[in-house]
Order: sequence, then C-alpha cells, then structure tokens
Amino acid sequence: MIIVMRTDAAPEEITLVTGRLEELGATPRVSAGSTRTVIGVIGDLDGTRDVAWDTLPGVERTMPVTGPLRFVSREAQVEDTIVEVGGHRIGGGTLTVIAGPCAVENRDQLLEAGRAVKDAGAQILRGDAFKPRTSPYAFQGLGKEGLRLLAEARDELGMPFVAEVIDPRDVDLVSSYADVVRIGSRNMANFPLLQEVGRQDKPVQLKRGFTSTIDEWLNAAEYIYNEGNHQIILVERGIRTFETAARNTLDITAVPIVQALSHLPVFVDPSHASGKRSLVPPLAKAAIAAGADGIMVDVHPHPEQALVDGRQALPPEEFGDLMRDVRRLAEAMGRQLS
Amino acid sequence: MIIVMRTDAAPEEITLVTGRLEELGATPRVSAGSTRTVIGVIGDLDGTRDVAWDTLPGVERTMPVTGPLRFVSREAQVEDTIVEVGGHRIGGGTLTVIAGPCAVENRDQLLEAGRAVKDAGAQILRGDAFKPRTSPYAFQGLGKEGLRLLAEARDELGMPFVAEVIDPRDVDLVSSYADVVRIGSRNMANFPLLQEVGRQDKPVQLKRGFTSTIDEWLNAAEYIYNEGNHQIILVERGIRTFETAARNTLDITAVPIVQALSHLPVFVDPSHASGKRSLVPPLAKAAIAAGADGIMVDVHPHPEQALVDGRQALPPEEFGDLMRDVRRLAEAMGRQLS
Amino acid sequence: MIIVMRTDAAPEEITLVTGRLEELGATPRVSAGSTRTVIGVIGDLDGTRDVAWDTLPGVERTMPVTGPLRFVSREAQVEDTIVEVGGHRIGGGTLTVIAGPCAVENRDQLLEAGRAVKDAGAQILRGDAFKPRTSPYAFQGLGKEGLRLLAEARDELGMPFVAEVIDPRDVDLVSSYADVVRIGSRNMANFPLLQEVGRQDKPVQLKRGFTSTIDEWLNAAEYIYNEGNHQIILVERGIRTFETAARNTLDITAVPIVQALSHLPVFVDPSHASGKRSLVPPLAKAAIAAGADGIMVDVHPHPEQALVDGRQALPPEEFGDLMRDVRRLAEAMGRQLS
Amino acid sequence: MIIVMRTDAAPEEITLVTGRLEELGATPRVSAGSTRTVIGVIGDLDGTRDVAWDTLPGVERTMPVTGPLRFVSREAQVEDTIVEVGGHRIGGGTLTVIAGPCAVENRDQLLEAGRAVKDAGAQILRGDAFKPRTSPYAFQGLGKEGLRLLAEARDELGMPFVAEVIDPRDVDLVSSYADVVRIGSRNMANFPLLQEVGRQDKPVQLKRGFTSTIDEWLNAAEYIYNEGNHQIILVERGIRTFETAARNTLDITAVPIVQALSHLPVFVDPSHASGKRSLVPPLAKAAIAAGADGIMVDVHPHPEQALVDGRQALPPEEFGDLMRDVRRLAEAMGRQLS
Repeated sequence: MIIVMRTDAAPEEITLVTGRLEELGATPRVSAGSTRTVIGVIGDLDGTRDVAWDTLPGVERTMPVTGPLRFVSREAQVEDTIVEVGGHRIGGGTLTVIAGPCAVENRDQLLEAGRAVKDAGAQILRGDAFKPRTSPYAFQGLGKEGLRLLAEARDELGMPFVAEVIDPRDVDLVSSYADVVRIGSRNMANFPLLQEVGRQDKPVQLKRGFTSTIDEWLNAAEYIYNEGNHQIILVERGIRTFETAARNTLDITAVPIVQALSHLPVFVDPSHASGKRSLVPPLAKAAIAAGADGIMVDVHPHPEQALVDGRQALPPEEFGDLMRDVRRLAEAMGRQLS
Repeated sequence: MIIVMRTDAAPEEITLVTGRLEELGATPRVSAGSTRTVIGVIGDLDGTRDVAWDTLPGVERTMPVTGPLRFVSREAQVEDTIVEVGGHRIGGGTLTVIAGPCAVENRDQLLEAGRAVKDAGAQILRGDAFKPRTSPYAFQGLGKEGLRLLAEARDELGMPFVAEVIDPRDVDLVSSYADVVRIGSRNMANFPLLQEVGRQDKPVQLKRGFTSTIDEWLNAAEYIYNEGNHQIILVERGIRTFETAARNTLDITAVPIVQALSHLPVFVDPSHASGKRSLVPPLAKAAIAAGADGIMVDVHPHPEQALVDGRQALPPEEFGDLMRDVRRLAEAMGRQLS
Repeated sequence: MIIVMRTDAAPEEITLVTGRLEELGATPRVSAGSTRTVIGVIGDLDGTRDVAWDTLPGVERTMPVTGPLRFVSREAQVEDTIVEVGGHRIGGGTLTVIAGPCAVENRDQLLEAGRAVKDAGAQILRGDAFKPRTSPYAFQGLGKEGLRLLAEARDELGMPFVAEVIDPRDVDLVSSYADVVRIGSRNMANFPLLQEVGRQDKPVQLKRGFTSTIDEWLNAAEYIYNEGNHQIILVERGIRTFETAARNTLDITAVPIVQALSHLPVFVDPSHASGKRSLVPPLAKAAIAAGADGIMVDVHPHPEQALVDGRQALPPEEFGDLMRDVRRLAEAMGRQLS
Repeated sequence: MIIVMRTDAAPEEITLVTGRLEELGATPRVSAGSTRTVIGVIGDLDGTRDVAWDTLPGVERTMPVTGPLRFVSREAQVEDTIVEVGGHRIGGGTLTVIAGPCAVENRDQLLEAGRAVKDAGAQILRGDAFKPRTSPYAFQGLGKEGLRLLAEARDELGMPFVAEVIDPRDVDLVSSYADVVRIGSRNMANFPLLQEVGRQDKPVQLKRGFTSTIDEWLNAAEYIYNEGNHQIILVERGIRTFETAARNTLDITAVPIVQALSHLPVFVDPSHASGKRSLVPPLAKAAIAAGADGIMVDVHPHPEQALVDGRQALPPEEFGDLMRDVRRLAEAMGRQLS
C-alpha cells in the first residue's frame, strides 16, 4: 500500500500516520518529495487493511500496490518523471498536445496535417507507418516510406514526431527515424516487443491495452523500464465494455489512479477512445480537467478521405477550436503548455 | 438517425444535407432550434448508412436512434429541457451542484453537512432516507424519520433537497417531502417504480444503471415521461467493467452522447462512480469540462464515521476546495452556476 | 473461506487440514454431511491466505466467503436444499426441466406449448403474465388473465407452473396462482420485491441479474431467506460482456461455483442467455454436463408469431430432440429426472 | 449473412429460402455439403434484415458475416477442416484431448506428467518452453532446452506435442521441434507473429484473446490462413468480464457460434479459463456437451510445486477420473476419441 499525503500535510499528520502503521505491525517508508510526502507501507499489512486511512487528517489517498513493480511505482520514485522530447518537457505539471493523422498516407496529407496542428499549437506530430489492423486485407501502412515522410515533415515543420512499432524486428528501423516510439494498444502485452523498445534509447509511448487493467499496464511499463529505458509516457485510450454507443469507454478515472501509483506521465487519446469526431473535443477537455499530462488527437486535412479511422479525425478548423479551449482550461487550472 | 448541425451551420449546408438524404430515399425532418438545427431522418434509411455524414460541412455529429423513443429524444424536442428546482434552472447551459451526505444518519450530521455545502456554494442538498443495500444486514436508512429531518434541513438552510425512493409503495411518501425524487442505479429498470414516479409531480433524478446501456437508460426515462412527468434529470454514475482499481468506471463519454441524443439535462456523480474520496475532485472537474449540466457529490462532516460509503465522501474543507476549482472551470468555459 | 473436502476424503486428511488451520491461527468449523465434509474457516484468516489449500490431499476446492451470508452458504448448511414443486424434488442430484412459452399470449398458444413440453418430458411449465420490457411501448403481458390461463393449463395438463412477478404489490396475486414465483434478472436487486416474495410461501426462482456478480446474487437470495422463505431456486441466465455475437454470455462456470458456495439448487436458462434458437440445445446440454440441477427452456408452438422473444423459442419438435439428448446425458452422468 | 439449413432440410425448404432472398433483392449462394446445405447471402442485404429467417422451415440458424473473411468462413468452405496431428484427425466430429503441464520445468516433471496423461487416454501432449508473463520478474520458461525436453518426451511416449511461440523471431525454432505451434491468448492480435506462423508448415493452435470478440478471433485465423497455412485449431479459453469469482468467464456459447461461422475445429481450455482445479472437470464436460472438437487440460504430477499456474492443474488421478467421464459423455453423444 502507498499512502499519499496532501501537499499541505503537516509534519505531525505524517507522524500520526507512521505511528499508526507501526502500532499495527507494518513498516512505513517515508519519501519526502519537493511537493508532498508519500509513505510506502511494507512488511506485515494484515493489520492495516481495515483502517480507513484516507479519512485521517493530511492523507490525500491510499493505493494498493498489486504487481511486483520495482521501478515504475511511486514507492520507487516519488518525483514525477520528466520525459524530454525535442525540447518539450513532458510530465511534472506541464501540458503537452500531440496531434496529426492516424496513418501517413502521402506527403501532401502529412504536411498539410502537420502544418495545421503546428499552427494551432500542438508540440509533437503523430503519424503511423505501421498499422495493426483486425483484418489482413485492410491498409497496413506505408512502412519505411512512411517513416521517411515523417522525418521530412519533422525537418520542414521543426516538430518531433511519434510513430508506432508493431514488430520487434522493426524496432531499430522505427527508432532510427522517430523521436518517440509507440507501443499500440494491441501490443501492450507483447513482451518481446516491450523488451526490444526497452533496449533502444528513444522515449517510449505505451498505450494501455483496451482490455488491460491498470495493474497490467504498469507491469508492461516495468518490462520496458527493466531493460534500461526510463523515458516512458503512458496513454489511456479507452477500454472495452458492454457499452457500444462509442467505440470504447474512455477510462478517465485511470488518469488520477495512475498518477498516484506511478511517477510516469499519463496522456489521454480521445480519438481512438471514442472513434467519433464529435466526441473528441469534450473528452479532450475532460482529460485536461482530470489532470492528464497531455492529449493525443487525430487530425486529418480531409477526414472524409482518410484511409484509416477518418470518422474520428478532427479537421484542422475544429482542432483549432479545441486548442483555444485547451488553453483556457490550462490557464484556469494554473498549468502551462510544455 | 439524427444529424445535429453545428451552431454556425449555414443554411446552404443544411440544404446540402437534406438534399443528399432525399436523393438516398430517406425523409429529412428539420427542427430549427434557437441555437442550432437538428435533422431527424426517417423513412428508408438503407441508402444512408454508408455515408460519413459527420464529415460534411456544417455537420457536428450524427447519432443513431435505437429504441422506440417517442418523447425524450432530440428528434422529439430540439430545445433543452429546463428543470426548475427551488428557483434553480437546471439544464440549458447552466451548472448545478448537488451535495450532501449519502445517507441521513441524524439531525446533527445532516445539518452540519448541509451548512457546509451551502456555504461552499452548492445549490441543492442530497441525503437519503431509504438505501438499497447488497446485504440485508447493512444499514437501510432512517425511512420516514430521515425525510422529516431533510425537510427540517431545507427549512433551516433554504435549500431544496433530493432523496431516493426504492419501493413503488413509498413514492407518495417521498414525493410529499422531497423537492426532487431519485431513482437509484439499481432501480433503473424497475419499471413499476418508474411508472409510479412518472405519475407524481416532483422532478425526477434518474441514475443510470451501472450495467445499463445508454439506450436502456433513455428508455427508462421514456417510461417516466410517458406517464406525464417531463421534469427528468439524468445522472451518469459509472458502469461495471473489468477494471477494479476504482469501484466503477465513470463513463464520461456518456455525457456528450446523451446530450446529442436527448434534450434532458445530464449530471455526473463522481462519488458513487469512484467510491474513493481522492478520485472525486478530478472526476468532478472532468465532468464539467465534458459539458455535464451538473455534478452530485457526497459530503460528510466526518467521513471516517459515516454509516454508508464513508470512503467516498469529501470532508467540508475538500469540498470547498473543489467548489473553487468548479467556479474557475465554469468561468473558463463561459458557464454560470444555476 | 470454506474448504470442501472430496467425497472420498479420509478422516486423517480432514485432520491434516484442521490442524494446519489451527497452527495458522484460524478456527476450523467442521460440518460432516452424509456425502462429504465441509470445513468453514473463521477467526483470524490472515495466516491462511498464502496456503494453496486445494493442493492438499483430500481437498476438493476452497471458496472465499465474501458477503455476510448467514443462511444460504454451505457453511450455514452442508446438505443440499431440496425444493418440492408439485411432487418433483428439485436439487440434491436430480435433474428438472422447466419449459413453455416466454409470455402467455392466449389460451391456445399456452395449451399447445404446455402439451408439447409435457409430452416431451418437461416436469414444470413456464409462462409469464407480467413482462418487464426495456421500452414502455412493448407488450407487457396479459396480467391477471394470464395467471388464470396458466392455472387452467395446470389443471388440464397436471403440471405445476412458474410465473414472474415484477411489482411488490402483485406478489400476493401471483403467489395465489403460481406454484413457483419468479424474480427476473432485472429485479434481482429490487430489495423490496425480494423481501415481499420472502414473506409468501411458494418456492421462489431467483434469476441472476445479467450484470450481477455471484456474490450479489447470493446476497439477493439471503434477502429472501432472511424473511422466512427457504425454498429458493437459483437460475443462471447469462451475463453482459463485451461479446455481442449472442445476446449474453452464459456463465457456465457459475454453476459449479454456486454449488460449492451454497446449498441452493441452481438452474440454467439457455434461451434468455443466448437469445437465439440454434444456440439453445448446445447450451442446455453444457449446463447438464456442468452439473446444473435443471434447465429452463422457452418453447413456443409457432416461434415466428411470438409476441416476445420468438427468436429464442424452440418449436415443439426441436424441444423433443433436445429432451432425447438430455435423457442420454443424464444417464451417462448417473442422474435421474426429478 | 449465412443461413445454415438443418441436416434434414428438404429441397423445397431450401428453394423457399433462396426464393425469398431473391425477392428481397439479395443473391443466395448455395453450398451443398455432404451433411447439410449452407446458403451464403451476398449482394444487397438491406431487405433481408427484418426477416426472422431462423423461424422458416428447414432453417437451423443464421449468422452475420462481419469481418471480411475470405477463407475461414463457412461460406468459403462448407465442410469441416480436418487437422492431422501425429495420426490423430482433429475436427469433423471426433473428440481430441490435449493434456500436460502448463510449463516445462524439468525432465522428470514433464515425463511424469506425459506418462500420466498418455495412460489416461490423452492423444496430444502440451508443455510450454516460452511463457508470456504479466510481470517481467516471473518465470519465463526454459526456452530451447524446454523444446528439447518436449521432443525427448515425444520420442519416449509416442505422443505429438504442442508448444507456444511468443516472438516472430522464434517461430522457426519452435516449429522445428513442435508438432503443433500455439499462439497464446495475449498474442492473438500480434499480427506479425500470426503471419510468421502462417508461413511455416506445422498446424497452428490459435487461442482466443481473452478480451477479443469472436469476429476478431476469426480475423486472426484469417491472417494465418492467408499466408498459406490452413491447418488451424481454434481454442476458447475464457474472456474477461466483471465477474471475478473465477479467473475468466468461459464463453461456452462461442463453441456453437464458431462452428456455425467457420469450418475450423474449436477446442476449449477449461484450465486457463477458470484458473482453479476444482472447476476444470465440470467445464471440460460442459465443453464436450456443447460440441467442442476437443479439450486442452493442464495436468501436473505435483500441482502444489508447479512454477506456473499450479492452482489450475489437475493431479494425474483427477485427470484419470475426468477421462472416464469424458468417454461416457462422448459415447452418449455418439462421438469417438480421435
């Protein structure tokens, strides 16, 4: 169990908690960060289970530690991890916007989308060259040519980019082009792939499996971290539930839960979560209000012609509207774009 | 299918849509509201299914009409329903905060909570006298005595209150005391109870079943509406999924979906959704950013002593902090408390 | 925790288990039934959690006791409950088949279905007079007239019948006609209704809520039992999951789980679980092979004309085929029709 | 849509169906197999949707065709695929039992388990050398040494074996040892891995992703088939739902659904589905009664010492009991072990 104290917790409130833990036979492990104190609880937890710890003065929340997380948990590191990408500092209270087409289709489409999201204020470009598709007969991406076009767009726009990798044999290739390498939702439990991206040195974006628990997601991050790559960005993108009115159910609650359990930054992808253009702006705003470290949004210059997921892409003008709202919300919450 | 046009859609954009519909053999039914136009599509829909309507100029979104909704759909009424409670106008762009203890335990607890939420800026008091509990051996509420205490709190605080009813034989009793009658999540498909509250004249709060689809939820509202009571407030409160890190998974996406499908106001209850105090503020803020018409929050003067759901109740000072954030967000989004 | 010993467990194997429990600080409570021994474990369970009890010699399985079940658990009563209905003994190793139309539509339909299922070997007739329907505009049943027709069919066919009740105010009415009163899936957590059927003296069929856990289901049975009615038959009827290829996902695993946790008989309803005629026979056979105490099957003389759920009803000749397979399976498993 | 006729459907019943289809503007594609006729429906399906086809005389069931399946659907091939493994014919009405340890731990454990399952009547040995584990710190299998031990067991016992592959770079290695190569549940949507096993020539066992729909599962089989490998065995192993009383919810309904949609054989794995030894026998029997082409069961000589999933493994004597019941059930259903 981890007990996260409020930022304004008094020293005697912390002592009260550690004292109670010791009385009950557990061992408190106090980590005093610059903004708040986190108390890891180890040893014999039996006596601690029936106490409503989060009702004690100064306590903000408690969280179970389920898997055997050695590195990615708040117990292991109290301070937020900051991931640096092209001069942008991701995590630690900033707000980062990644945007662009779901798949790279051709040079014009990519540059048109890239210019639009850059002008509107996005910091990082997205665009995929390898797409995992349910059917073997669907468009699978441009492969290496797509990566080349993304690199060209980066140079032309002065914008780093993130691209997905789906095969351990392609990790070196993708890593040699992209600024951030993405593990997609379907590959969250592809352990050889996780290990391979853990061995290269570009930051890794790890999307949550749309049917994975938060615990499994953090264990997947642990696979990457354990190989030596500590620059990991988590992305919540909706989970599979009984509700079919949208493509998936965005698990907005995962944002504060992950931020309590782990020091890694967590983003939200409202486009893949909802699968529907009109739902993207309200979900993007909800993500920011819930405290996400960033959002990732599909933008396509001509959504009606998109080869992949056109129904979920925002056209440039609607993305511009969204960015105006994002800035207002960020300001109201005392946060700054990275 | 309903096609919702953007608020700034030009007349020729509307004509383009209706023209395409007619070409494809369907019958458009245009409802021009004060802020935007909604096009209901009836007749032969076969030809319309493969068109990506939401990529046409001026179109904000499309939504399927699934159940046989006669009254609660946007097709039936374009303008938002406004529900009036104790002088507060709920819906239509305002923001309303309901707060108070989950269950009424005694006079002091109720008044202390009521004063705290009133001072912090909540408009409506919550507090239940009848509680549906999984186990027959759990505290089931104070019954009529609880309603009497709620009425006393209303008089003392000048604040209307909402209370749950769980038995069709108690509807008259609860309705004679409460300003708003609530149908809880477990009773969303209790059709005799829905019909009974549809026949009394207090507004009705209808929580979504935590395992019900949005379509079933709107059909439940239809049961109430069909009996003559049109003052219905919907409340999203989390759904049951495979993820168990929080009590339920708040379906934040349901907010914009319901607002597109129905003219009824929709609230979010972050307390019952998460079951955890520390998750309530981020989820409440997410709800407002997503466009919810209001939030309903458990507040208890001494959460650690609560008879029901103490782990999810905010103490007064944390509710005060939340209300400050709520006001900032509302302002950033151009909305006003009701 | 309950530790269920194998039927052939030796006394020293039982002693081994109780000895280990005592060493670990827990209190074993041995209940020696006629066929096997069950060991309830109370007191301090902390030390017992890490032992793989079900790998010890003579142990068949262990099961957690989650809710505060006082009456319906195996701890409270080791021997199977036998429910008597019209001379048939349900539970305790027999096999019972309930069949008939989903809803009573008219005298001819009911008698035609009744004669067919009686001739094929079903012991109990089903047919509903009150139907809970998602939409207020769907057929809601014939009400009292339906009950009168069912009573007439009982007299003519010499077959007891089961009928659903959906309103606490109708319990006396339904109970005065029916041989078994059913709580449907949507009402499993309708606690006033559960209490009301617990106060009348006909056996109660309690369907699992299609979104309820096994623990909640047993707690619902506890509500009935606690009011004095101990003649309860549980019915698994499928749960709501992400898979939509059938109406629901039959939780066949619930059958052996419930039989380990509770002494009440458990049936399977393959018709409502699947919603599809062609899936009913394989699921009915699976239920029997998994050890269910009975099955309940929709049969309609003319499925294509059914007012409710026609797609899931078997026509008489297919039900006859199924009954032949049921008898063969029962024989192979050493079981007899009740 | 596919319309599957009953085995005893008369020619005029088939003509009635095809005639109605043509009247409604669709194109029927009749495939007359040796035991029954299947009618694929292509062209304009709009008019066909509201007909309750499965209530017409001679019709056994209808099934939607959702994904773009070219090869693995019943439309593409009416006759059951028969997969030959070590002289055993899998599919087409036979019953095959695969059994052995979850993971290969050492020579003695493997041979002891292998002898036990061989003696009890299992036809194929299971045992994994590569294990995908949620945590990077859990036992990951013996790798190549495990494959060598499996090959040794094959020679000594005269029993073919199946082993999992989790990395596209290991496909050649595993394929060079194993008689059947398995894609595990976590890798069902690992498309590069599917393609790689589709390019080697050993039969492939494809487990359903525990969070995948039947449609996605069949599309995964299509990936393999499309590369040229047509010897595919599907395995249902439980899906993730809200119910946590067992590890997963065995989707027994998937068995008849898949058999209607596809010509590939379908197995059930009750061990991984339930995660609990005591639940394995009832689920195994349910699978056979539902018509599964085979079962795959974890057996360990000393479950309490197993390195992986010991709680779900049957000890040899319980597996022997299960095999006796399996034979009785098979006989009652007129089926023979392969």
